[in-house]
Amino acid sequence: QELGDMKFGKGLLNFTAKDSSFSLKFAPRIQFRSETTWNYNGDAFEDADQAFFIRRARLKFDGWALTPKLKYKIELGLSNFDIGGASVYTNNAPRYILDAVLKWNFYENFELWAGQTKLPGNVERVVSSGDLQFVDRSLLNSRFNIDRDIGIQLHHKINIGEDFVIKEKLALSQGEGRNVVVGNIGGLQYTGRLELLPFGEFSKKGDYFQSDLEREQSPKLMMGVVYDFNHDAVKTRSNLGTYMELDNGELYRTDIETWFVDAVFKYRGFSFMGEYANRISGDPLARVPGESNVEYIVLEGEAFNMQAAYLFKNNYEIAARYTTNDYEDFTNVSDVEQYTIGASKYIVGHKLKLQTDLSYTTLNKNTDNLEWRIGFDFHF
Amino acid sequence: QELGDMKFGKGLLNFTAKDSSFSLKFAPRIQFRSETTWNYNGDAFEDADQAFFIRRARLKFDGWALTPKLKYKIELGLSNFDIGGASVYTNNAPRYILDAVLKWNFYENFELWAGQTKLPGNVERVVSSGDLQFVDRSLLNSRFNIDRDIGIQLHHKINIGEDFVIKEKLALSQGEGRNVVVGNIGGLQYTGRLELLPFGEFSKKGDYFQSDLEREQSPKLMMGVVYDFNHDAVKTRSNLGTYMELDNGELYRTDIETWFVDAVFKYRGFSFMGEYANRISGDPLARVPGESNVEYIVLEGEAFNMQAAYLFKNNYEIAARYTTNDYEDFTNVSDVEQYTIGASKYIVGHKLKLQTDLSYTTLNKNTDNLEWRIGFDFHF
Amino acid sequence: QELGDMKFGKGLLNFTAKDSSFSLKFAPRIQFRSETTWNYNGDAFEDADQAFFIRRARLKFDGWALTPKLKYKIELGLSNFDIGGASVYTNNAPRYILDAVLKWNFYENFELWAGQTKLPGNVERVVSSGDLQFVDRSLLNSRFNIDRDIGIQLHHKINIGEDFVIKEKLALSQGEGRNVVVGNIGGLQYTGRLELLPFGEFSKKGDYFQSDLEREQSPKLMMGVVYDFNHDAVKTRSNLGTYMELDNGELYRTDIETWFVDAVFKYRGFSFMGEYANRISGDPLARVPGESNVEYIVLEGEAFNMQAAYLFKNNYEIAARYTTNDYEDFTNVSDVEQYTIGASKYIVGHKLKLQTDLSYTTLNKNTDNLEWRIGFDFHF
Repeated sequence: QELGDMKFGKGLLNFTAKDSSFSLKFAPRIQFRSETTWNYNGDAFEDADQAFFIRRARLKFDGWALTPKLKYKIELGLSNFDIGGASVYTNNAPRYILDAVLKWNFYENFELWAGQTKLPGNVERVVSSGDLQFVDRSLLNSRFNIDRDIGIQLHHKINIGEDFVIKEKLALSQGEGRNVVVGNIGGLQYTGRLELLPFGEFSKKGDYFQSDLEREQSPKLMMGVVYDFNHDAVKTRSNLGTYMELDNGELYRTDIETWFVDAVFKYRGFSFMGEYANRISGDPLARVPGESNVEYIVLEGEAFNMQAAYLFKNNYEIAARYTTNDYEDFTNVSDVEQYTIGASKYIVGHKLKLQTDLSYTTLNKNTDNLEWRIGFDFHF
Repeated sequence: QELGDMKFGKGLLNFTAKDSSFSLKFAPRIQFRSETTWNYNGDAFEDADQAFFIRRARLKFDGWALTPKLKYKIELGLSNFDIGGASVYTNNAPRYILDAVLKWNFYENFELWAGQTKLPGNVERVVSSGDLQFVDRSLLNSRFNIDRDIGIQLHHKINIGEDFVIKEKLALSQGEGRNVVVGNIGGLQYTGRLELLPFGEFSKKGDYFQSDLEREQSPKLMMGVVYDFNHDAVKTRSNLGTYMELDNGELYRTDIETWFVDAVFKYRGFSFMGEYANRISGDPLARVPGESNVEYIVLEGEAFNMQAAYLFKNNYEIAARYTTNDYEDFTNVSDVEQYTIGASKYIVGHKLKLQTDLSYTTLNKNTDNLEWRIGFDFHF
Repeated sequence: QELGDMKFGKGLLNFTAKDSSFSLKFAPRIQFRSETTWNYNGDAFEDADQAFFIRRARLKFDGWALTPKLKYKIELGLSNFDIGGASVYTNNAPRYILDAVLKWNFYENFELWAGQTKLPGNVERVVSSGDLQFVDRSLLNSRFNIDRDIGIQLHHKINIGEDFVIKEKLALSQGEGRNVVVGNIGGLQYTGRLELLPFGEFSKKGDYFQSDLEREQSPKLMMGVVYDFNHDAVKTRSNLGTYMELDNGELYRTDIETWFVDAVFKYRGFSFMGEYANRISGDPLARVPGESNVEYIVLEGEAFNMQAAYLFKNNYEIAARYTTNDYEDFTNVSDVEQYTIGASKYIVGHKLKLQTDLSYTTLNKNTDNLEWRIGFDFHF
């Protein structure tokens, strides 16, 4: 048994067993950055606050077992940002496991998934945090995405005519996020995502990484729509956010619906992504029945994000992004508007890259801050 | 240097260094399941509660170093069930390490172990959680086992006559469980296990995995007896359970003794395991000297578990189990009786299998609940 | 692709990709020990307290990527001693990552580091805990070292004449220790270390492991001096110790300076290390402005440590150490004096070794305790 022909960026280990009984790609990854913020105090920008972070560090195992039709993925978080969120719901333990999932292609174009992994939500979320064209994801994503959960998924695709591809992804999940040990408190979460690729598949699954590193020679487009229904949700942002623990010791439950519409376009180094998100709930005001005191508020609202970039021949990229988050008035959360410009040097694609971006943010139309970030991704 | 000839189920990495200076088997593992429970409210079964879990996820390293006589094992827990139990006694940190132990065959049939690993307790506990014939271990085990601890062990075996094998296992441990950083609070824990194998060794150490996957061609039997003495124990279940922290700020200390008698039998696809457990203590009522208020109670009692299964030629297995836990009245803990039927499909032995079981449980002879579990084990 | 020629002690995996695009050395490590302490009660030594520990357990990845000029190191802690310290500053999560750093030799003898790793502080700290000649580091180190932090470092060396080597190491860090997620609360930390090696480089970087395992054939000496300035430090021991959270909810800030002078000498099996440390601060008494109640005290003082050892031909070593920690009176911390004798058997260098040591400690010149430690290091 030999190892496969290895190359930086293709895994630290990458091989298929000689008897073809399994394959493995193993890769660690670290993301380091500096963030410098100038807050605006109403009159002027204050002195800078600067900080260094290991923002993400991960170990990833993936491949197939027994047959290429049975794929597995295990991804572990290492950084303190990755593993936070310990609570009684997670056995007071860090949330170490990101993905632990099997994917079984049991029939033609059908794939059954079982385990914990990302839900088929907005495309920006499903793109790996290691494959972004800015230093990090947008504010739409940070407040509206539906993240990872545990349960089962069914994925399917159809080819229509020469090129047109349609993909359907369905998920049945517990609805309270990842690494929960106390069982299902509210009801189940149901997610459906429909994707249209009118000009055919992107090169090397390019709809699910940012930047047109493959320099598509013909225009490629993916349009998606997601509907997510979290029955009797107990957290303020569907399966994310804070548990709504009422003063009477019970958890507040309400149905939460999340919609996403998104699109990805790539052509000859140009890339575009647009997203719209919307969250509503049965009754967003969490209070003990009969009491007037509102203890939690479901973060209802809508958000919009669009970003475009151009990748030069020398693998430098410039990018721009515009994001708005508009919350319902009763949430008492300020509306956010953010303008970002970014630049990346892809030394070995997304596996070794330097990135920087500069964001200007307003809260309720008032200047809030200016933030400059610079860092690298190092990913076998 | 090449890798060994690899095969799914024999490790993700598995090789011996070309210079014969060490060997390695490395394997990750995940166990996913769904649990559905119908509680009985006295009149009828209530609506089902359903939940998904990554019940276990592990990384295992084992092999030998310098010489096959010096073996090592490192096993790390990843799931939130595996790593819980953070307390001041564990540096307020998750209990990540399961095993970290060296095993040195220093003379003939003698082996000296040093580090943290499972104590030589009841056979059901020492069998890996990945090698069970039900979805999980019995209730006898969950309340009476003596788990892992840190210290040293001495293992020895003798062959008598043609086939008869006797094994003796002794352990000297700290007595407060795994991953403790505050030192030894109570006294030491002393464990002895004697095993008789009148018809010789099981194929491939089959006494320590469940199901007769090796289809023994002659009857094989292992009978064991364990005596465990935890001097000045400070937890309610010997080295497991809750620390008995009294109102006066001191830890309550009492000697706790645990007995096990167990047997494993396998023959042509049939497998049987029976166990008896018993726990007594010096004074089970933890209170401040001179005070009447009992703050903790050592979980004294006895338990019985027996299970049998038959493995068909197609690697489907059906199994049945009966368990009782009878606690002393002063514990105020209800006696439990449980009937379980299970079925397994061993696709690649215990390494890739689907399992399901259904349990009916009574508390003090009253119906408590019905539980249905289904899941898979995926283990390189 | 083949693995490199592997050998115990050179990594569990150790290879260079066939296309020379990266190299990897991966190694797990465990350190097990027993500690027995006899406290002195003023009249006599009390009964012994004994405890077992997995003191350290680690996973290490290092090598280079793209070019040998771009090195990486990722080291993860596993034991409960390694990963403690969870707080709001670390996302209430264990501090799993020790090192996550890239080192880029961008020009001649200049190396730029970015990420989290050890600061260029006292030599005893920078020597790996797996490469010590006693069971653990000295008390000087435990109270005065400046540990790991996140930021950037610049390393440089010059050769003067035939042999004389000068190394300069500069670090710009956040100044609050490792795995912080809340950003930089106080000011930055600035560290400079200057090293003189008048007789040239040690064999195999022997200044940075203890014991003269390479048996230097000519005398080798390294002399170092470190100055560390932590601007607006918020912890009692610069970037280590307790956060000085005042009653008014603010963090106390004061500049903390740490000095080290150290020397390492090795020749024909003999090894010597001497260190001096000194910490002072702007105002060591942390209190709310205008209030008299002192809530925290910066641990000001000085310390001295010297140790010497001789390695016999059979790889047994005997060693002796003398350490004093003298704190300023206002700290109310007792001065410590410690005498240690130790013995090691290096079976495979520092990778597989047995060690024992015996320490006699006084507090303010009064006998405090006697401690005997014995354990092993097992390190691929």
